[in-house]
Amino acid sequence: MKNSSCPASNSKCSIGVFDSGYGGLTVLDELINNMPEYDFIYLGDNARAPYGTRSFDVIYEYTLQAVEKLFSMGCQLVILACNTASAKALRTIQQRDLPRLAPNRRVLGVIRPSVEALGALSQSKHVGVLGTVGTVRSESYLMEMAKLYPDFIVTQEACPTWVPLVENREFENEGGRYFIKKHIDSLLAKDRQIDTLILACTHYPILKTEIRNFLPDNIQLISQGQIVANRLIDYLERHPEIDKVCSKKGELKFYTTESISDFEEKASVFLNRKLKAQHIAMN
Amino acid sequence: MKNSSCPASNSKCSIGVFDSGYGGLTVLDELINNMPEYDFIYLGDNARAPYGTRSFDVIYEYTLQAVEKLFSMGCQLVILACNTASAKALRTIQQRDLPRLAPNRRVLGVIRPSVEALGALSQSKHVGVLGTVGTVRSESYLMEMAKLYPDFIVTQEACPTWVPLVENREFENEGGRYFIKKHIDSLLAKDRQIDTLILACTHYPILKTEIRNFLPDNIQLISQGQIVANRLIDYLERHPEIDKVCSKKGELKFYTTESISDFEEKASVFLNRKLKAQHIAMN
Repeated sequence: MKNSSCPASNSKCSIGVFDSGYGGLTVLDELINNMPEYDFIYLGDNARAPYGTRSFDVIYEYTLQAVEKLFSMGCQLVILACNTASAKALRTIQQRDLPRLAPNRRVLGVIRPSVEALGALSQSKHVGVLGTVGTVRSESYLMEMAKLYPDFIVTQEACPTWVPLVENREFENEGGRYFIKKHIDSLLAKDRQIDTLILACTHYPILKTEIRNFLPDNIQLISQGQIVANRLIDYLERHPEIDKVCSKKGELKFYTTESISDFEEKASVFLNRKLKAQHIAMN
Repeated sequence: MKNSSCPASNSKCSIGVFDSGYGGLTVLDELINNMPEYDFIYLGDNARAPYGTRSFDVIYEYTLQAVEKLFSMGCQLVILACNTASAKALRTIQQRDLPRLAPNRRVLGVIRPSVEALGALSQSKHVGVLGTVGTVRSESYLMEMAKLYPDFIVTQEACPTWVPLVENREFENEGGRYFIKKHIDSLLAKDRQIDTLILACTHYPILKTEIRNFLPDNIQLISQGQIVANRLIDYLERHPEIDKVCSKKGELKFYTTESISDFEEKASVFLNRKLKAQHIAMN
């Protein structure tokens, strides 16, 4: 890996935000809302998205490449704003790759803060996880919950059609509603005591209104953007050595492995603002 | 490119069949049925599939990498069994890359034979094309039809949810039928004189029974496997210099950029037989 010189004494770093596609922009949106003074670099591996149905080996390889790219741009801290990458690659990167590549840098995922939110919010101690096939099969939510909240019952449901529904804006019709209802019903049939549900894929907040329509009123529905933002603020308070090298000019940069014009058009829908992107090659 | 020695005087070559994912197996299936004595190498870029919504640049880059891999395995002839790759990459590869890389080798696509079938089968001279966003946007079917059958009316419909419906086996339910009917209705509303429709994505034959249910009886529905097989047999008859270097032991090899076990499990559904695959890296 090219080990960039940041943090040098005279330079400050952006916080890296990685996602396989566009969904991580829903997390970035909350980061910007809650931490507007910080600089962020978003990297979307759109030319190889979606990751949700790919194997462990492929997801790990692609995620590590992205983390190395963000490190080479000087990021001291990288958020994997993607549940599939967090579920399948984060632990190996933290335990095996970071000590070798960049022992002073940090990579954080979205699963740990999500699990903490589930634990804090559920009264019945029966919670539900809606995610991609990759996230569900990894059992990362089950393992993290078992560690932190061993007395909770966690039930998962994989929703493989939901990302295509979001990316093609096909969720506000009868066909879209069929697939949304199908997975909500399936999850709740598995455990009728669930009182808290997490949208464990960063695409799913776009479906929130439709999902809410099929949920009983007593079930809380939580998405990850705000949770991750709160957790990052807390993390930087506890790690002033990292916070002090974070640049705070409110600058945003966007990189994509896809064509710039495609990315700019689709990303503006997720982020609700106009943006300029740059191309980046991953291999 | 590593220029492999095949065809050497003492070696014979397999025919390469490339697809971004699993859909090309529906074409390979017909090739095996019609030409059981030939050897084939199938290469699926499953770790980066689907290509249907990607940009021109990305599809071209990925397709060229795959063609080079198949050449390096000695293939003298490569079939792009993928409409998106045929639409967006074939012409550039044929005109710009082949003369430089391998002037004696050939790369063929699925669009030209499909267009010839439409021209031969339609009585009304009004035909329809159902494809991915990439295939439709490329306008390759419109351009090829205009060259060969300038008096035909060609109407296209992009069906971006159909590949996820196939890959997740979600087409035999109310939600799947909604999206199948939606695009059939939309296409026929654009031109009520259509009498012949082509499934211009190699995933779509899996949906044939469901599609047929929403079509008036007088409309012919054609898929590409048989067409491509007929065309290849014809091509080899007209090019004995290529046919004579084709190995004819009936051997099949499968390569995937994804995990072998994932590929073997999913591929057996498309090909309706058990198979053994090998991993290949693309970069």
